[in-house]
Amino acid sequence: MLPTVIRPYPALRPGDRVAAVAPAGPFDRASFEAGLGVIAERYRVHFDSGIWSRHRYLAGGDVRRLAELSAALADPQVKAVFCARGGYGTLRLLAGLNGVSPSPKPLVGFSDIAAIHAWLQREGQVSVHGPVLTQLGKLGASTHERLFSLLEATAPAAPLTGTETCVEGVAEGPLLGGNLAVLTRLLGTPFLPPLDGAILLLEDVGERPYSLDRMWTHLALAGIFRRIRGIVLGSFTGCEERDADYTSGEVLRDLATATGLPCAAGFPIGHGDLNEPVPLGVRVRLDAHERRLSFLESAAR
Amino acid sequence: MLPTVIRPYPALRPGDRVAAVAPAGPFDRASFEAGLGVIAERYRVHFDSGIWSRHRYLAGGDVRRLAELSAALADPQVKAVFCARGGYGTLRLLAGLNGVSPSPKPLVGFSDIAAIHAWLQREGQVSVHGPVLTQLGKLGASTHERLFSLLEATAPAAPLTGTETCVEGVAEGPLLGGNLAVLTRLLGTPFLPPLDGAILLLEDVGERPYSLDRMWTHLALAGIFRRIRGIVLGSFTGCEERDADYTSGEVLRDLATATGLPCAAGFPIGHGDLNEPVPLGVRVRLDAHERRLSFLESAAR
Repeated sequence: MLPTVIRPYPALRPGDRVAAVAPAGPFDRASFEAGLGVIAERYRVHFDSGIWSRHRYLAGGDVRRLAELSAALADPQVKAVFCARGGYGTLRLLAGLNGVSPSPKPLVGFSDIAAIHAWLQREGQVSVHGPVLTQLGKLGASTHERLFSLLEATAPAAPLTGTETCVEGVAEGPLLGGNLAVLTRLLGTPFLPPLDGAILLLEDVGERPYSLDRMWTHLALAGIFRRIRGIVLGSFTGCEERDADYTSGEVLRDLATATGLPCAAGFPIGHGDLNEPVPLGVRVRLDAHERRLSFLESAAR
Repeated sequence: MLPTVIRPYPALRPGDRVAAVAPAGPFDRASFEAGLGVIAERYRVHFDSGIWSRHRYLAGGDVRRLAELSAALADPQVKAVFCARGGYGTLRLLAGLNGVSPSPKPLVGFSDIAAIHAWLQREGQVSVHGPVLTQLGKLGASTHERLFSLLEATAPAAPLTGTETCVEGVAEGPLLGGNLAVLTRLLGTPFLPPLDGAILLLEDVGERPYSLDRMWTHLALAGIFRRIRGIVLGSFTGCEERDADYTSGEVLRDLATATGLPCAAGFPIGHGDLNEPVPLGVRVRLDAHERRLSFLESAAR
């Protein structure tokens, strides 16, 4: 199979029409409206009234969520798609998404949304690993500016810096991945992102160290570390074991060391107090020694 | 690929030499010794002093655990292998196990041990989904008798009865599977059990309903429900969401209904107060209407 060509999206302009969707879990209304407020200052935001639906741990049934997401992805008048929240639910939509032809546009979100990112990269589209709407209002103006710049500027994003070198080295490739738990749920399915030669981004929340080990080992048994070139670790929030004499950071460092791939940790990406938006599918350079992630291509064209 | 032929193990006799191993997590000594007491009344139990090792969430390093397990599996003088505890750790041994030639014998355990069961069935061996040693002492005499009978009798095991029909129907095939979380960690790897035509056993502990849905959906996306013939649900212990207006049982029933496969739930297998041992790899008949699991072949020869 030929490598997937992943293309930048058309740059947004202020005043463009954009959509808010809830393809995963139900969400807090006030947090959602705070996030809407941030993007409504810049774009005309549309969302369906069904977005408030709730069925168990889902923002409405699969039919509703798939219809909402498919319509937003396919409609050429919708210039970007913002996800309300992660949680759980996108995996249930993947089989249905396979019938959708997305018009080129950025989709913004993270966590459970990683499964949609993976699908978009298979479709050859760059998307944005960044705050969901319920998180956006809690983040600072500089993160909002970075998001708008990613959506609108036809220049590469500013580099990000991590806090720790796990394995020395330098590597280049398309940035792919996101939430570790969600990514591993794509192993053995037709929905894994095109990982060959990639720099793999991983983050997670609320997973105990043994569980991080189990998911990472799953990636290893599936041969993923033989296919990728480097590893970027974002936030692993609430991942410590109570009363343990080891940390999740130590566990992750040992696992990274076993891969032998350049790896740096502590990037401000994920469920922590910071969640800097980054484009998935664009070529990046990871300098693990300098703990620097540089973006070599623009996400927008 | 030809279907894997899974063969019964040589029947044990009282006085036989057997091994205790800890391929996964560290364990409570008193519970372990209570379990040892049960099997020591019947067999000569050997274990390595290294079994008490502890490294983070593991019963010692991978080298120790792999050496202990490999030796027990390969030694023809060891007539059965009993696992001390599940937890986490067997996934880390699978790549190393691929160099081992196991002499035919039953291995007893469940939960994290499901990954070793899967490997043994790939090697063409029946094994026993049943109590780990730390659990065995807490179970009743009838369960101990059932275990000894499975190991020693050359007749099929007595049938088990569940509590609920999820999807009507009757199906036959080899019983395979075990812990849902562990089984899904084998998707996309070379270590999945030979599931074609199987009756799939699933159980779990401490997973929230959305997480059960996520794992089940992973099996679906990987095409597993197109390969198997029926589903046997054991205990799903501590799997309820606090203050929810739905139960894990309802979630599982909906997921089972979507497969269209005969399915019955509530079998006394797993992390609950009962954990009746069952042979994996032998041909069974599931009558979902009658909620009955019948064993059509002997586990021992």
